[in-house]
Amino acid sequence: MSGEDAPPRRRGRPAGSRAGAPQTREVILAAARAEFAAQGYAKASIRGIARAAGVDPALVHHHFGSKEKLFGAALELTFAPALVLPDLLAEGAAGAGAGAGAGAGAGAGAGAEGVGERLLRSFLGLWEAPEVRERLIAVLRSALTEEQAAAMLRDFLARELLTRIASRLDVPDPQLRAELAASQMVGLAIVRYVVQVEPLASADPEELVALVAPTLQRYLTGR
Amino acid sequence: MSGEDAPPRRRGRPAGSRAGAPQTREVILAAARAEFAAQGYAKASIRGIARAAGVDPALVHHHFGSKEKLFGAALELTFAPALVLPDLLAEGAAGAGAGAGAGAGAGAGAGAEGVGERLLRSFLGLWEAPEVRERLIAVLRSALTEEQAAAMLRDFLARELLTRIASRLDVPDPQLRAELAASQMVGLAIVRYVVQVEPLASADPEELVALVAPTLQRYLTGR
Repeated sequence: MSGEDAPPRRRGRPAGSRAGAPQTREVILAAARAEFAAQGYAKASIRGIARAAGVDPALVHHHFGSKEKLFGAALELTFAPALVLPDLLAEGAAGAGAGAGAGAGAGAGAGAEGVGERLLRSFLGLWEAPEVRERLIAVLRSALTEEQAAAMLRDFLARELLTRIASRLDVPDPQLRAELAASQMVGLAIVRYVVQVEPLASADPEELVALVAPTLQRYLTGR
Repeated sequence: MSGEDAPPRRRGRPAGSRAGAPQTREVILAAARAEFAAQGYAKASIRGIARAAGVDPALVHHHFGSKEKLFGAALELTFAPALVLPDLLAEGAAGAGAGAGAGAGAGAGAGAEGVGERLLRSFLGLWEAPEVRERLIAVLRSALTEEQAAAMLRDFLARELLTRIASRLDVPDPQLRAELAASQMVGLAIVRYVVQVEPLASADPEELVALVAPTLQRYLTGR
């Protein structure tokens, strides 16, 4: 995990206004993600993360300021693949004519009609990739066992994901509905990938899409 | 939690084939539940549970055999209020005529028609009670962080709850559908009660019933 070569602190580069190459930041973030996953938020330390990254703790402080901010940056990295999700709704809106009301259902399958399915396919795609799954499970565990990690996940998800999704919905209570869609996806991930209850754990993703996409569709579009 | 008077091991009762009063079993179970909740499955010990219950460890072994079996019994106690849930489906089936196929939807709101709503109301009712909520969160945390606890929760839920619910469903893939209903309820509980994302965390239960009951209804009845 953190076994990549860490760039030495003194390299043959001009010491500009920022110390270290952009790469240093990446190496610290990778080490941070591994440490937070292994130790949980409360037990992970800047010192331990610096050690794993092969850099001085001062450099971690320089780049990220605090453990809290470092965790936020690691979360963002973990969820980076998920940040495409709101765009799936934009596609839908564009296909159906932006900001359109609940028009006649002539074009089923096109535009907003397919948003539940697109969202679920992307979500399952993230979880089916083992290395992404591992990181998502680590974040869930931290959030469920440590209040501070829960608060940060909550803020991050609200700010980065759910509010952006909600802003594109043409339904009453869009934020609540975006959260209900999220609740179905989180629950599905927990039962399928974490607790691994059969037959759900081994069900074909296509079967899940057929059964669950209509749930997301209804939450997000009211139909 | 474990502060109730533990019955002394030698009481003025005839020493029948089983040592100790039925009450002893309850006191040990209450102590076990508190210990598992506080420590997680891996760290809790028979010795610590015996100490909290004010009894000899040998008595715990006598009543429950092993830590694993004790955890199973504690789980059953935690979920005892949830074991009424399958009966909600029986009510529905009785109302609609037992084993009826997907008949004409003349009596919307009666019988199987209302099963999603009844199930969700009971589920939210459990979680809205603070002392039940605390215990359920403790079980979720154990299951998400410790494989052995996850395995036991998985077996227990499959055996006691989901299979019983599935046996009463008149749809293809009843077990998978029961698990999807469970996944929506688990996800709802996590987002609302554990991670506490707003506005879902403060939403009126009636609003949630209106939005989420149709999801459960569709999973469980196909309509």
